[in-house]
Amino acid sequence: MKVGVVGVGHSKFGKRAEATIRDLSHEAVKPAFEDAGLTPTDIDAIVFSLAGDMFNGQGSPAALVSDYVGTQDAAPIRIESACASGSAALKTAAAFIEAGIHDKVLVVATESMTRVSTPEATELMSRAGDVVWEFPFGVSFPAYYALYASRRMHEGLTRAQLSAIPVKSHEYGALNPNGHLQKTVGLEEAMKSIIIAHPLNLYDCCPISDGSAAAILTSEKTAKELTDTPIWITGIGTSGDTMQVAHRPNLTNLSGAQRAAKAAYEMAGIKPKDVSFAEVHDCFSIAELMAYEDLGFCPIGEGGKFAEDGEMYIGGKTPVNIDGGLKSKGHPVGATGVSQCYEITRQLRGEVPGKRAVEGAEIGLQHNVGMHGTFVNVLIYQR
Amino acid sequence: MKVGVVGVGHSKFGKRAEATIRDLSHEAVKPAFEDAGLTPTDIDAIVFSLAGDMFNGQGSPAALVSDYVGTQDAAPIRIESACASGSAALKTAAAFIEAGIHDKVLVVATESMTRVSTPEATELMSRAGDVVWEFPFGVSFPAYYALYASRRMHEGLTRAQLSAIPVKSHEYGALNPNGHLQKTVGLEEAMKSIIIAHPLNLYDCCPISDGSAAAILTSEKTAKELTDTPIWITGIGTSGDTMQVAHRPNLTNLSGAQRAAKAAYEMAGIKPKDVSFAEVHDCFSIAELMAYEDLGFCPIGEGGKFAEDGEMYIGGKTPVNIDGGLKSKGHPVGATGVSQCYEITRQLRGEVPGKRAVEGAEIGLQHNVGMHGTFVNVLIYQR
Repeated sequence: MKVGVVGVGHSKFGKRAEATIRDLSHEAVKPAFEDAGLTPTDIDAIVFSLAGDMFNGQGSPAALVSDYVGTQDAAPIRIESACASGSAALKTAAAFIEAGIHDKVLVVATESMTRVSTPEATELMSRAGDVVWEFPFGVSFPAYYALYASRRMHEGLTRAQLSAIPVKSHEYGALNPNGHLQKTVGLEEAMKSIIIAHPLNLYDCCPISDGSAAAILTSEKTAKELTDTPIWITGIGTSGDTMQVAHRPNLTNLSGAQRAAKAAYEMAGIKPKDVSFAEVHDCFSIAELMAYEDLGFCPIGEGGKFAEDGEMYIGGKTPVNIDGGLKSKGHPVGATGVSQCYEITRQLRGEVPGKRAVEGAEIGLQHNVGMHGTFVNVLIYQR
Repeated sequence: MKVGVVGVGHSKFGKRAEATIRDLSHEAVKPAFEDAGLTPTDIDAIVFSLAGDMFNGQGSPAALVSDYVGTQDAAPIRIESACASGSAALKTAAAFIEAGIHDKVLVVATESMTRVSTPEATELMSRAGDVVWEFPFGVSFPAYYALYASRRMHEGLTRAQLSAIPVKSHEYGALNPNGHLQKTVGLEEAMKSIIIAHPLNLYDCCPISDGSAAAILTSEKTAKELTDTPIWITGIGTSGDTMQVAHRPNLTNLSGAQRAAKAAYEMAGIKPKDVSFAEVHDCFSIAELMAYEDLGFCPIGEGGKFAEDGEMYIGGKTPVNIDGGLKSKGHPVGATGVSQCYEITRQLRGEVPGKRAVEGAEIGLQHNVGMHGTFVNVLIYQR
């Protein structure tokens, strides 16, 4: 596979209840067009990612956004894969291009979540869980991931190892102007903050945010005509897992992520050690920890040590979430996958300034997870 | 493009409020696996179509259904394009295959609508319209299409011409065991039934239904290994249009359908006259009438005469909706696109018995419309 990323854009993430999904989308799409040197009428198809209709009561949001950004005559489609919707949209756009159905595809990924109260937002997100067999019994997403964290702590993971992850994310996130929470946090404070779902505390959990990100993908031929610095998507792997956490054989890792990573590495013809840096789905600290292992950055069971040793910082073995990750940058659920693409594209182009720059990066990896590993997309990007 | 359809399945359509989306999906998936001679673990990816989360309050329904039908380790994704969701799922599955990302893809398309009251269902569907600028002012879907019908009547379309369409659909639909409404209707009765949204009456409007359809798509190589009677998807065209009907330059035809048809014919290398029969999106009689013209079965403006002359019957110029169409078979919105694929596949295989058989059919066309032409997918199938 060789699909070009020729333009990216990003809105400010944060509490943006005053902005509609139209407004947020436009904030990301406008710079993406400028970046690519294209206009809306150049676009053949628009692939829109939004996870939750229920937040806004707007069905068919793809048509709404397509019309607003000026691509109303292009082919519209909306993709949903819970919190992995953004990367699922990128995958779909890449497939349309490789299949020869469309040549220039705009991917827009948006979520507006803070218009409803926090308890209501938590309920609406929890409705991605089985509404007959799990949701009614109180299994919210912090609860799903708390089960994994509990098991890992039973097996030896320490509080300090887990909290090393948000400390790192906030350190980089404080430098990201698009981020929701721009502040650093010390290890002591991160370890002792209020419990959300035991053992996960406030700093283990990403915030609820509004925002949008956009990317323009094209065929190899068109990308080479449009830009001297195309970034190539060279591998895509996807997998699933059981809907109910009750059916999982163990609560230590996400086997769907392992399968997706294997498929992506194989398609791109690379190995985990070749990855210069990664954007992983850290909806909770434990999710980032499992990702280190599931993606092969360290052996299974050694994610805690990897974090404690700071191997996920620039200069470490594999820098992870140098944009602040979901934890600090924020997690407008449908937008996250394309926000990861934005960061990877800019890093590989050498456009990220200062302390956040991964110098000489050649290969970026994206890991985007829906639910508790029920949807996983892994994408490989190369210069 | 050459993607094989190697198995299809269909649930009973109708008022099925006792069945969940799991149950309905299983009813379609089980016969699809039997038809293809495959089992769930053979499947690489599941593409799920469902238009409205709000009908059931279940987010991420793809994972729920994937787990229930036994494909939980396959790559899941959910597609939404309003009432064109089913064909958008087929398009996405075909693209995954042509791009070499997945080889054997299960497409499942389901909608459960009668669990809520009819007024509530009408509201939820209307929410696919712009919830800021059109929905609050009373523009439901019967109203959108009534605007088109009014304009066409102003330009000469007669009541009898329009009613000839549901008379035909009910005649064939009465013979379809999977259909929702299995009864015939005379022209007089169809012309004089109660008004829903002037000038559209009861027989101009499809019912609200529950149901599911499934199809298994594979690469050309795999299809030839699996079956002696693969049906090939050889052309796909998609287009969009403005979100708001207020922004349309005219209310006589759907320009998105014309663009989508042109692209599909070009990809398949065929012309409208080559089409042996078609499954078109007749959510309202006026929609089928515009489709005759938009797909090139008759000149623009002559759809009324085409209907009056019975050219859409078997034996006429181009048989249309020989399964009863949305009008008689029913329209579980997310399922409709794959139900069309089911009918086309069985017709091209020569499996449809009796008076509904289109003898010697070589090419089938599918036309699936979301909203008032805001999403349109046209697919070409060949033996």
